[in-house]
Amino acid sequence: MNYRTGLSERPQYDVVEKPWCIKVNANETNMNLPPLVFERVMSRLSHVAFNRYPNEEEDFLKEAIAKSYSLTKQNVLLGGGSSEIIEKLFYSFGGDDKAIVYPMPSFSMYRIYAYAADAKGVVAPLKEDYSFDAEEFIETVNKNNTSLAVLCNPNNPTGGAVPVETVEHIVKNISCPFLVDEAYMEFYGKSATPLLKKYPNLLIARTFSKAYGLAAARVGYLLADEKIIDMVSRSFMPYHMNVLSLVTADIVYQMRHEYEPRIAMIISERKRVAAELAKIDGIKVYPSETNFLLVKCGNGEALNEAFVRKNIGVRSFGKAKNLENCLRISMGLREENDEIIDVIKLFSEGRD
Amino acid sequence: MNYRTGLSERPQYDVVEKPWCIKVNANETNMNLPPLVFERVMSRLSHVAFNRYPNEEEDFLKEAIAKSYSLTKQNVLLGGGSSEIIEKLFYSFGGDDKAIVYPMPSFSMYRIYAYAADAKGVVAPLKEDYSFDAEEFIETVNKNNTSLAVLCNPNNPTGGAVPVETVEHIVKNISCPFLVDEAYMEFYGKSATPLLKKYPNLLIARTFSKAYGLAAARVGYLLADEKIIDMVSRSFMPYHMNVLSLVTADIVYQMRHEYEPRIAMIISERKRVAAELAKIDGIKVYPSETNFLLVKCGNGEALNEAFVRKNIGVRSFGKAKNLENCLRISMGLREENDEIIDVIKLFSEGRD
Repeated sequence: MNYRTGLSERPQYDVVEKPWCIKVNANETNMNLPPLVFERVMSRLSHVAFNRYPNEEEDFLKEAIAKSYSLTKQNVLLGGGSSEIIEKLFYSFGGDDKAIVYPMPSFSMYRIYAYAADAKGVVAPLKEDYSFDAEEFIETVNKNNTSLAVLCNPNNPTGGAVPVETVEHIVKNISCPFLVDEAYMEFYGKSATPLLKKYPNLLIARTFSKAYGLAAARVGYLLADEKIIDMVSRSFMPYHMNVLSLVTADIVYQMRHEYEPRIAMIISERKRVAAELAKIDGIKVYPSETNFLLVKCGNGEALNEAFVRKNIGVRSFGKAKNLENCLRISMGLREENDEIIDVIKLFSEGRD
Repeated sequence: MNYRTGLSERPQYDVVEKPWCIKVNANETNMNLPPLVFERVMSRLSHVAFNRYPNEEEDFLKEAIAKSYSLTKQNVLLGGGSSEIIEKLFYSFGGDDKAIVYPMPSFSMYRIYAYAADAKGVVAPLKEDYSFDAEEFIETVNKNNTSLAVLCNPNNPTGGAVPVETVEHIVKNISCPFLVDEAYMEFYGKSATPLLKKYPNLLIARTFSKAYGLAAARVGYLLADEKIIDMVSRSFMPYHMNVLSLVTADIVYQMRHEYEPRIAMIISERKRVAAELAKIDGIKVYPSETNFLLVKCGNGEALNEAFVRKNIGVRSFGKAKNLENCLRISMGLREENDEIIDVIKLFSEGRD
């Protein structure tokens, strides 16, 4: 078998799933569609021509998204979650050992996307407290043969965010395209999208998977200058988006104001849980502008096991570099969060 | 902008769609879900956890498919239509200027997939009457540095099929993996799947888009040796399949016997329409084992224009090499096919 060079060594993304009683390991929203949205989604799905290839549904969604940012549909590219958007962006700016720069720790897939794109993944480390060092980032971008710079803002899995002014400072001081992955933006509230018209090098990826609770449908989008959108879209195959997901995302987008109360609730829970955990001995909670909290303790593995015993799935980083003894916990419903706080309290008191 | 080498020149798949009254240009089934299937699909969709990332749904569908072929789920890979399956296969066996061999004329995307995979697309031409030349194919595979050989059977857009014995003859006489793209197999009835256990080099791609009328959902699959499936699956990103399409395809697969009458109807229409068209002066109809007919006339462009004037969308190949003056017409409903026959009759009589 004459496989592609490097395919067998490609790093893989491993997720261990169990039928958790409480699932807070993937930064999902722990609520299904709001009832009014559910009704309209089901009604729309019942009118899908299942037998037809995707056609105008992609344009409808692009136009709706573009309009809300005062852009045109030529500024919007749709993908299977922001995952596919980022994968194809890395591909489009990859090859020939070009460098793609991103912070560390950050979204673990960046390394895999860079590998798949035959690009050199170059990390710009966060400070020890996981805060972002803009000057270090700019320097790393400028001293390498960088074809694409990437910032996850707010950052996964650390939770911190940088202000829009920092994004602007970066885009002004680097010459390559700059992708801001705003997967968690709705929990922070300060998007860099208003900068798009001013900086044609700025690209912003967004997703329906987190705040809009649509991880099952795999829909995300890229906002950028139309010349960039045109080039990156060449890396996608025809009919790469399916109609069921497109029409579902379209309804959700039209009804996005229905999500405001639950986003506010998740933010308020994040603040409450962070404050509760901060009171517990031996537990460090990092500042978060997302729908999750990064928690560090003396023995992350043991704390993870305490969760597993209670059938609660959290994301443990095991021995991952710079994330030793860290756990990432997505915000669930209030009662779920209370159980989580209890597990950590008992663990800290040695009574789990 | 430092884009990937070759991206701006990547050939694109262009489809011109209009709101046709009769749409027979994409080999779709011109019927939506059968009523019993529709009810169960909608019921299943109403139980989707939209907020959760895909999880066990992919395994459920893989297991159902594997079982029907007496294989295991390790022999099955799912993709966004057989399109994505073929794209990723080409990628997995591409790079380093390896050759991927396929017939010509055949599915026009093969050339694009080969380009995207940094592979050399090498064509093994069909005979002048579009019949398949197995010896020419074997020779072309063996004289090149071929990493993957591909046969679309039955062939799109010519419609012809080769018997399973020919598939076996090929797989015995080449040493590289051999993909048989069986997108239209249900209209032919003779799959090479029984050979899978005997020949670990044989791969078979299937789709839900044609006979199962699910083009909107983008679901296809690959059947192959588990070592090949394991390697090719490394080229896919996590969560590349969405839950809505997976559960829809799962219901359709469970209820696939509901499709037998309509498949029989499409085959019977194909025979009827072929016989009617064969009676018309100046029209050549090629033998077809699919849900479409390839038709050749003195002036394909003019015939296409006659269809457009009637708001009927067919696939005209314009000046495509070896397909000059050819039109591909998918089988619609009986009344739609009657209108199509009428257009061709009037055109032939110079009365359109």
